[in-house]
Amino acid sequence: MKNIKDILTSRHATTIFDDEKIISDDIINDILVSGQLSPSSFGLEPWRFIVLKNKEKQKEMEPMCYHQPQVSSASHIIILVARTDFNENDTYIDECINRYNENQEKMTKTIRTFFTYTKDIKNWASHQCYIAGANMMMVGAIKEVDSCPMAGFDPKKVGEFLKLKENEFPALVIPFGYRAKEPRDKVRWDLEKIVEFIK
Amino acid sequence: MKNIKDILTSRHATTIFDDEKIISDDIINDILVSGQLSPSSFGLEPWRFIVLKNKEKQKEMEPMCYHQPQVSSASHIIILVARTDFNENDTYIDECINRYNENQEKMTKTIRTFFTYTKDIKNWASHQCYIAGANMMMVGAIKEVDSCPMAGFDPKKVGEFLKLKENEFPALVIPFGYRAKEPRDKVRWDLEKIVEFIK
Repeated sequence: MKNIKDILTSRHATTIFDDEKIISDDIINDILVSGQLSPSSFGLEPWRFIVLKNKEKQKEMEPMCYHQPQVSSASHIIILVARTDFNENDTYIDECINRYNENQEKMTKTIRTFFTYTKDIKNWASHQCYIAGANMMMVGAIKEVDSCPMAGFDPKKVGEFLKLKENEFPALVIPFGYRAKEPRDKVRWDLEKIVEFIK
Repeated sequence: MKNIKDILTSRHATTIFDDEKIISDDIINDILVSGQLSPSSFGLEPWRFIVLKNKEKQKEMEPMCYHQPQVSSASHIIILVARTDFNENDTYIDECINRYNENQEKMTKTIRTFFTYTKDIKNWASHQCYIAGANMMMVGAIKEVDSCPMAGFDPKKVGEFLKLKENEFPALVIPFGYRAKEPRDKVRWDLEKIVEFIK
């Protein structure tokens, strides 16, 4: 493996993929596992992942993503779907907690209290999806697979297209594949500008 | 390097660190670089990173984080600070765009249009910080450094404590260090439950 700085420098938002190069099933599995094993608030994993690998359907989805060409040229699209069923009568929190051997009553109370005060469950859930998405892109980069994180899409149209449930919405769309050309040099603020040490 | 599945399985939200083990400056630098090189919406890097390494100050901060013990026992705390100065009269977008050789006028117009329609700049910015935070934790894990992503803190108190500017807020607090004990087995939904393939 290359060193992590080289990997992250090589990673870039790939807008045109080589549409003849297909990612292997093993690598797609590694990318999905990195999402699965990601941390989430209270361990609630408020997500599921849809893997779209069908050129016709990718072309159909592209206009819903404001015609960004990475949607049709990618090898695979992974859509990180956030779930929002964390209200009083929803059972998903209990399903999560039933997996633990610990004091489930106490865990339930802590989490239920959090949701009593949390007005914005949608943003809470999509933040968690961004962690999983970042891990997927990092593991892709380690395996020399390119990607492009996309929040620029019509969530209603994409949700209907993917037949999402009522308590779900698409938080992040990530095309994965192999770059068609090398990117421009990376532009970033110097560390000195963005880091403050308090010792 | 171990394989990525082992690394991600070993990674866990570490709630008690061995407070005698200190992360090397080189590894802290790698972690910061992984944040610096993270992708962000429109490449605007709406973040800066504060590294807190001072036991007295960590103890002072712990009650602002609802007394979570990882704050005082960690080797370093990295606070991902989101910036919100993306309104009409703010100059940060121009500063970012001035770094490119491309058609700056067109880029500015696209981004300004986005912000005209974006009501929720705070959530937009904190989502970007979550990507940088996930990369920091991943690079930590690759280097066998433990971490704990925390959104459970009083943002107003933490903001005052860190003397943040008016256009900034703490999006994510991540203690880094070395685990004091091994965690329980990882609990996650099976891939079959959370992944849907559309072929």
